[in-house]
Amino acid sequence: MFAISDHRLNPTSELDLTALGLEMYDFIIRLYPVCRSITGNGVRETLQAIREYVNLEIREVPSGTRVLDWTVPPEWNIRAAYIKDPSGRKILDFANSNLHVVGYSIPVHQKMSLENLKPHLFTLPDRPKAIPYRTSYYQKDWGFCLAHAQFEQLIDGEYEVFIDSTLEPGSLCYGEAYLPGNLDEEVLISTHVCHPSLCNDNLSGIAVATFLARSLAGRSRRYSYRFLFVPGTIGPITWLAFNQSRTNSIRYGMVLACVGDDGPFTYKRSRQDKAEIDRIVSHVLATSGKEYEIRRFIPYGYDERQYCSPGFNLPVGCLMRTPHGEFEEYHNSDDDLNFVQAEALAGSLHQCFRIVEVIERNHSFLNTAPYGEPQLGKRGLYDGTEEQRHALLWVLNYSDGSHSLLDIAELSNLNFSIVAEAADRLLARGLLKEADKKSLES
Amino acid sequence: MFAISDHRLNPTSELDLTALGLEMYDFIIRLYPVCRSITGNGVRETLQAIREYVNLEIREVPSGTRVLDWTVPPEWNIRAAYIKDPSGRKILDFANSNLHVVGYSIPVHQKMSLENLKPHLFTLPDRPKAIPYRTSYYQKDWGFCLAHAQFEQLIDGEYEVFIDSTLEPGSLCYGEAYLPGNLDEEVLISTHVCHPSLCNDNLSGIAVATFLARSLAGRSRRYSYRFLFVPGTIGPITWLAFNQSRTNSIRYGMVLACVGDDGPFTYKRSRQDKAEIDRIVSHVLATSGKEYEIRRFIPYGYDERQYCSPGFNLPVGCLMRTPHGEFEEYHNSDDDLNFVQAEALAGSLHQCFRIVEVIERNHSFLNTAPYGEPQLGKRGLYDGTEEQRHALLWVLNYSDGSHSLLDIAELSNLNFSIVAEAADRLLARGLLKEADKKSLES
Amino acid sequence: MFAISDHRLNPTSELDLTALGLEMYDFIIRLYPVCRSITGNGVRETLQAIREYVNLEIREVPSGTRVLDWTVPPEWNIRAAYIKDPSGRKILDFANSNLHVVGYSIPVHQKMSLENLKPHLFTLPDRPKAIPYRTSYYQKDWGFCLAHAQFEQLIDGEYEVFIDSTLEPGSLCYGEAYLPGNLDEEVLISTHVCHPSLCNDNLSGIAVATFLARSLAGRSRRYSYRFLFVPGTIGPITWLAFNQSRTNSIRYGMVLACVGDDGPFTYKRSRQDKAEIDRIVSHVLATSGKEYEIRRFIPYGYDERQYCSPGFNLPVGCLMRTPHGEFEEYHNSDDDLNFVQAEALAGSLHQCFRIVEVIERNHSFLNTAPYGEPQLGKRGLYDGTEEQRHALLWVLNYSDGSHSLLDIAELSNLNFSIVAEAADRLLARGLLKEADKKSLES
Repeated sequence: MFAISDHRLNPTSELDLTALGLEMYDFIIRLYPVCRSITGNGVRETLQAIREYVNLEIREVPSGTRVLDWTVPPEWNIRAAYIKDPSGRKILDFANSNLHVVGYSIPVHQKMSLENLKPHLFTLPDRPKAIPYRTSYYQKDWGFCLAHAQFEQLIDGEYEVFIDSTLEPGSLCYGEAYLPGNLDEEVLISTHVCHPSLCNDNLSGIAVATFLARSLAGRSRRYSYRFLFVPGTIGPITWLAFNQSRTNSIRYGMVLACVGDDGPFTYKRSRQDKAEIDRIVSHVLATSGKEYEIRRFIPYGYDERQYCSPGFNLPVGCLMRTPHGEFEEYHNSDDDLNFVQAEALAGSLHQCFRIVEVIERNHSFLNTAPYGEPQLGKRGLYDGTEEQRHALLWVLNYSDGSHSLLDIAELSNLNFSIVAEAADRLLARGLLKEADKKSLES
Repeated sequence: MFAISDHRLNPTSELDLTALGLEMYDFIIRLYPVCRSITGNGVRETLQAIREYVNLEIREVPSGTRVLDWTVPPEWNIRAAYIKDPSGRKILDFANSNLHVVGYSIPVHQKMSLENLKPHLFTLPDRPKAIPYRTSYYQKDWGFCLAHAQFEQLIDGEYEVFIDSTLEPGSLCYGEAYLPGNLDEEVLISTHVCHPSLCNDNLSGIAVATFLARSLAGRSRRYSYRFLFVPGTIGPITWLAFNQSRTNSIRYGMVLACVGDDGPFTYKRSRQDKAEIDRIVSHVLATSGKEYEIRRFIPYGYDERQYCSPGFNLPVGCLMRTPHGEFEEYHNSDDDLNFVQAEALAGSLHQCFRIVEVIERNHSFLNTAPYGEPQLGKRGLYDGTEEQRHALLWVLNYSDGSHSLLDIAELSNLNFSIVAEAADRLLARGLLKEADKKSLES
Repeated sequence: MFAISDHRLNPTSELDLTALGLEMYDFIIRLYPVCRSITGNGVRETLQAIREYVNLEIREVPSGTRVLDWTVPPEWNIRAAYIKDPSGRKILDFANSNLHVVGYSIPVHQKMSLENLKPHLFTLPDRPKAIPYRTSYYQKDWGFCLAHAQFEQLIDGEYEVFIDSTLEPGSLCYGEAYLPGNLDEEVLISTHVCHPSLCNDNLSGIAVATFLARSLAGRSRRYSYRFLFVPGTIGPITWLAFNQSRTNSIRYGMVLACVGDDGPFTYKRSRQDKAEIDRIVSHVLATSGKEYEIRRFIPYGYDERQYCSPGFNLPVGCLMRTPHGEFEEYHNSDDDLNFVQAEALAGSLHQCFRIVEVIERNHSFLNTAPYGEPQLGKRGLYDGTEEQRHALLWVLNYSDGSHSLLDIAELSNLNFSIVAEAADRLLARGLLKEADKKSLES
């Protein structure tokens, strides 16, 4: 028989969140230097590292493959790059920061005047010490990114530019971890792995998704879980192209991105707007005791825009802390190891645990004594705190077949776990029964 | 033929509210000393007093009777109780305040040390001069309540405790007044009669319900009215157990409690949330010119929790002034004759009259000249105040078969009675006709 | 094939709004002295002036004709009127202001004491320099309006009063301009022409409606447009009486009144409350960059009360700046040529153009590549401003058959014209197709 307690998570007592935060931070330190892009060996290296924590399938999709409206691009790899100034001094070196080279730069080795070089140089005049992050995936070009302060020191003369890259047929690779549960219906967690040395965007998402998957692998699951570690845009498009029929099983989904800074949580609802995942995350954040913001769906942002394209229209939202573009360190070299915090990572993982708890434990019951209030005292239920007694009354009053525990948590403004505990006690005393056989696992 | 004016109430001119307030206050003075509980002679005495105003049936239900999930408890009666201090001086006497004895205390007569007595003594440390109100209905025990200031003066030594009570098979009694109207559909007014010497909670509810019933008995009624004077929780449960089939006729309902203090009105909506009674009371309070608050249903509070249990789910809200637990005098000896006010009682009764007026007069009509605006001038209707002329236009424009007078009052922000007067004038000129034969009385 | 660009209006570049404002102001100067009423030659003269700009049919409906619940009144004309004081001095002359005579005054010529005259004199004690505007259409009477300051100077003695008017069988006349479009469905613009020398109420509405009609006559139209220049109340009632079957074709409608002062825009929604016209005007004003207010329907105001009577219930709102009765110059001689402004008139016309643009260009499309996001870059669509790129994504994501361009503009908070431009570009690249053949013109 089903008991919601079977799927209880109690991360704050079972797991040491502080230790988990430090572990995730160490994982980010390790992955920080790797030069990732939408294809190439940096992504492979990243996926191999994740695989040490999670049983990951690594998929390779050949360049040129048609995926929905797109085509898998050539694979890009880079070994070295530099600029030498007129005196022959190396003034910029890819070895120091992989942000120095525009992603997908074609190989180049030539001498040129500063005037001719300038159109290939990118800086942030308003943030003169930071190196910007730039790519040119679908337009063949090359370029360098550097601090504006350095750019302003450049003297006239002949410069040597060198990029030892290849852009040739290969494959796009992504990682997929599937954790089967009692139900075929699944929860999709997707995070992008295409950014080079940027910590919040998105080593934070990679770390939290990895540790969430590791934790879920070790416990019983009502739902099945699918984790996707994919390059942005082309990654989910590729997965969706090959898994169109599977998407019917996706009942809940979340994109994780920018979850390592110390800003308040931000949840962007799915295109469905009132999908259960939207209600769950809203409830979890509302009862988190922390500042948070819920936003409407907009058709730009992270990979939720693919899952939420009108043909799929999946119930997939996006959990962030400070959203992309709204922190100054966004897409530049200041999104570094100082910007993300072990404590923030732990806090993000904690909210993910709470979201999973609601997904796992939400259920509809029927009050077996619906006429009048059942007498709690004679069943030994008239104890506990006032909040716990109120939770019993809320669950009894609204367990009428048309309200789930989540509905009741929303109505009562009680934390879902208090409501679920009350339901467990009432179930044990026979005051509740299952509302609907169909939605239960065998 | 139906005319809404037949069911008009005009309490402010027809009745002297000030006199009514004083009459209700006198009634409370009379009932204040009676020791009520959920059973026993104090309830009988109270019901007999109500019967002097209202044609009340008094029901007796034997102890042990199964009522829904509950069992009617033994009957409790008490004649005397005291504590004598080590010097033999009577330091606490039931004769001074029936709050001194925990309700449903079993008989006791023994000598004991202060140490052994203390677990049986209850005080309010934060309100040291007040005697708390406590009961132990379903757990056999005995105890005394006293002012914390007195408790702190108690010296060591041997005390004599004496409670001359009986707890034995008898019956639970409650009062029921049924006032038939043109329609079988009925309005339920329920108020609890189980509290001893506490004025706002709930001699105020008893007084207002009694005088409302007396007033309704004396005039024509479209709806039938049922007044229940019942002990809390077990009372409505008992009534519901024996009247389950009758509940289908309940179209409107209200629990009256704590309506004698000078706080603003508070209305707690029914579980249905948008039942007509909820809209009516909200409208009446919104147009009362007084401060008020409307609250959502929660499954604890007064007896509305029984009427609104999911099996019944009746359209029953709860009208209060300051809600239970939100005034300092709640459930202690300061809820006395000084705390309730004749003027507040009169104001509560006045709003009840206004609620009844909307119940009685709400109706849907059809504009008989719906194309363009009918010419009011040629019918002698272009007179009165601007508000009255606007009311005519509102009624004409929205009398399309899908809007009741209450809908129109809500849309227009006009007082229901102005809207009803306008409808009466338009009916008289033939500009309105009845919308729906079915909902009219024969 | 349909292209929304066919019906684009770009008034700010195509038309010189400043010049249009001055032209409208000149038109108001010309019509200001004319003595209009609900019937009579002043209305005819006004309609003839409008006819110089718009191909207007002028309808004459005989006095005594039954129109819905009303009867067309006798025709009123006035040539002269005065009051002479006891010394024989003409102290009030209709030639100076047609507001001096109560509209529909019957002829009179007699001598009378001040005491007997006073009941026929009307002033504004709170605005002592202004002449009020009064009428007595359906009650036979006569009277004069004058400044309260002058009234207070009147000395006792015998006065001579003279009104050379006629009130006799004739006709009510109104103007109607019909501009056929590709669709039979039509847009109704109605404005009242019955007020004498008052500029904002409603020469402003007459001017804006006239110039809007002139502009629409000169361009392609998807919808048909009907402009009504009608006396208040009896005018729309007369039109509705004879055109009841035509009203089914009215898909959008607006009453224009008081659109010449410099107050913020006010739109009063139709009785339908969420009609497409209500959403369109709300969107247009919300994206106007100007202060504005949207109000609920109320059954009094201008002629929208006739179009929105329950039998018709047409989607007709009312566009104003400062609403009637809410400016001090309302219905008195201070609503003069100084009170209305060329710039305000131009601004009102501009918003009308924008409203028409949405009416003409709103449409529902289907994204032809709904799975994932289509690759914009390969189609040359990844250019323009960020707002323009976002507009492309909004249109693609929500073109699912259940969202119109107006829906998308509302969802995205983008100006409708940005959204329509995006749709045009996507249509041209084959990424959109028509959602619904039925709603398209042949």
